[in-house]
Amino acid sequence: VREIPFVLIGVGNLGRRFCEIARDKAPLLRDEFELALRLVAVGDSQGGACDAETGIDLDSVVAIKRGGGTVGDLPVIGRKPWPALDLVARADAEILLEASPVNLALGAQPGLACIRTALERGMHVVTPNKGPLVLAYDELIQLAARRGVELRYDGTVAGGLPAVNLGQRDLRGGVISRLEAVPNLSTGFVMDLVGRGASWNEAIALAARDGTLEGDGTWDLDGWDAAAKLVILSNAVLGIRTHMSDVRFEGIRSLDAATLREAHQAGKRYRLLARAIRTSSGCYDLSVSPVCLTVEHPLGRLSSKQMGVVYYTDIYGTIVALVEEQTPIPSAATMLRDLLDIYLGRQFGGDKKSRPYTTGSRVRWSQSPL
Amino acid sequence: VREIPFVLIGVGNLGRRFCEIARDKAPLLRDEFELALRLVAVGDSQGGACDAETGIDLDSVVAIKRGGGTVGDLPVIGRKPWPALDLVARADAEILLEASPVNLALGAQPGLACIRTALERGMHVVTPNKGPLVLAYDELIQLAARRGVELRYDGTVAGGLPAVNLGQRDLRGGVISRLEAVPNLSTGFVMDLVGRGASWNEAIALAARDGTLEGDGTWDLDGWDAAAKLVILSNAVLGIRTHMSDVRFEGIRSLDAATLREAHQAGKRYRLLARAIRTSSGCYDLSVSPVCLTVEHPLGRLSSKQMGVVYYTDIYGTIVALVEEQTPIPSAATMLRDLLDIYLGRQFGGDKKSRPYTTGSRVRWSQSPL
Repeated sequence: VREIPFVLIGVGNLGRRFCEIARDKAPLLRDEFELALRLVAVGDSQGGACDAETGIDLDSVVAIKRGGGTVGDLPVIGRKPWPALDLVARADAEILLEASPVNLALGAQPGLACIRTALERGMHVVTPNKGPLVLAYDELIQLAARRGVELRYDGTVAGGLPAVNLGQRDLRGGVISRLEAVPNLSTGFVMDLVGRGASWNEAIALAARDGTLEGDGTWDLDGWDAAAKLVILSNAVLGIRTHMSDVRFEGIRSLDAATLREAHQAGKRYRLLARAIRTSSGCYDLSVSPVCLTVEHPLGRLSSKQMGVVYYTDIYGTIVALVEEQTPIPSAATMLRDLLDIYLGRQFGGDKKSRPYTTGSRVRWSQSPL
Repeated sequence: VREIPFVLIGVGNLGRRFCEIARDKAPLLRDEFELALRLVAVGDSQGGACDAETGIDLDSVVAIKRGGGTVGDLPVIGRKPWPALDLVARADAEILLEASPVNLALGAQPGLACIRTALERGMHVVTPNKGPLVLAYDELIQLAARRGVELRYDGTVAGGLPAVNLGQRDLRGGVISRLEAVPNLSTGFVMDLVGRGASWNEAIALAARDGTLEGDGTWDLDGWDAAAKLVILSNAVLGIRTHMSDVRFEGIRSLDAATLREAHQAGKRYRLLARAIRTSSGCYDLSVSPVCLTVEHPLGRLSSKQMGVVYYTDIYGTIVALVEEQTPIPSAATMLRDLLDIYLGRQFGGDKKSRPYTTGSRVRWSQSPL
């Protein structure tokens, strides 16, 4: 069994759930892949903890965070404050999981500095944090390549949907004439509620209570979140150097409640749609705006718990991918997906052998038609 | 620019279109990836041709096949007959593209023998041919691993949809509780026509004329095709050694036309559904049967030109992937996808850098909201 010492920065919605997943999946990771994850350093906004020798108990981290505390209060190994960057700079780890909240206004810190430092130190990085990639995509990709390590960020776009993986790996050699995405749940959730008769304030309050909407909602409701995700898709999949200033975006708050209700009664749904449309010159026009989708549109029947992306291509047809997530677990699980892809892609020299036969389970033999 | 000498066996629906794609995409492959494909040997059922020195002109192959001829008639380099296996055994190539028709009754030959020989010789293999994988999945995967080469078959399931890739790469560490797939176009195409009022014979004749249905239709209409695809998904994604005899399957011909019409009028669609359902013991129950899907089902609104797969998982949510293909081009393009994945995955040491920035194209700069 190969041990993978890792650092986790950010133990909120995604980070804490990753700890739960890592705990619950430990037997499967050991039996199927001969891997064992060992948390050697962890930090949240108030403190940190470090234990390279025995590893930090995931249950203790989960318990303290569920109780609203900080990992800085972990007995013996905790300290507060303990700057995240210092944890990353010292940790004896192979990989950083950077799951701190998006923070464009503060230059995506401390996430960006942590990622830079980890890559410089030769650590792989997995992050569902959009901020650093939106601000420094090119720099970080090149830094990882120079250091010969992996930077993965499949969780930055559309939660648990492997939208980046699909676009990067399965459309090579193709030309994407158009990309459409509903890359978050929150805006659809709110618009569906308003469509069904709630006031904007009620809908926003419900989304906040549900955990779908974070902070004061500005990031999601005014289109920043969708635009940031489009910036990442444009860089990573369309292969175009893109910044926030390249996207024309608007949010959903300027929509009239009556308009949403009318659409709802006509069986249509509004979604905040991120679009990249290839122009005759080979450029892409990038925009985010609320759009009334008919049921015929590939994203026109998304529930409040679904996100999706559509790639319109020349040789690969039109590919639609949707994810339904009732909880943030699939978003948190993208970190496991990325981590396993880094380790299994290498270990086995190719993806195809990365899911070895599970012994013990057998197909139920039913009547043979042959 | 790196030259990739390849052998192509089978120049029908998919093989001929691959030649067209390779021809049309040559500039893009050179500019974006620094790769050049060179056809050094090609074979169809009647003859073959070989030219390792200058490579075989793709346009000549396309022209002769469009005219209904055999590549054995290619001037100077052609010969007929020329057994496919002999071409593969002699060719000085790095990779075999095996696109001969499915032929389970004849032991998946000549495809299976060609694939075995290529792998033994240390060539990579890409194939959209289900037969060899259905009959010898385990043997071929292990042979490729022993020889240190890649065997890719993303085109064996659901045409151009990266159903295998998605299942193998993006769900690692997860448990699939249920898998549902509509893995071919032909059966839905026929049932939709009958639902709209055509007789079975008319619908089958139309599907044959459209090119959707091949041969006498038995393979598709009686469920063999869907069952074979489920066998591959079960082996490749569920990680279970599976054979045709493990699948309980039926086709669509026992359905009553009146039943299809009633469903159609009620806004529902019948689809031949391949399913793997995990049982409490960790086994999977594998079946193929026609099912009346409501519009709420993730595959309930597929058009006659769409296929799809749904993975119901524990930690990755429910992931739906659909492909719409108006022509066989996306199915043929899976060979390019697989080939590029083999070469770019290696060349760059990781997928993320495989789509370098395209120079020349720029994002159109629109008003900045920042």
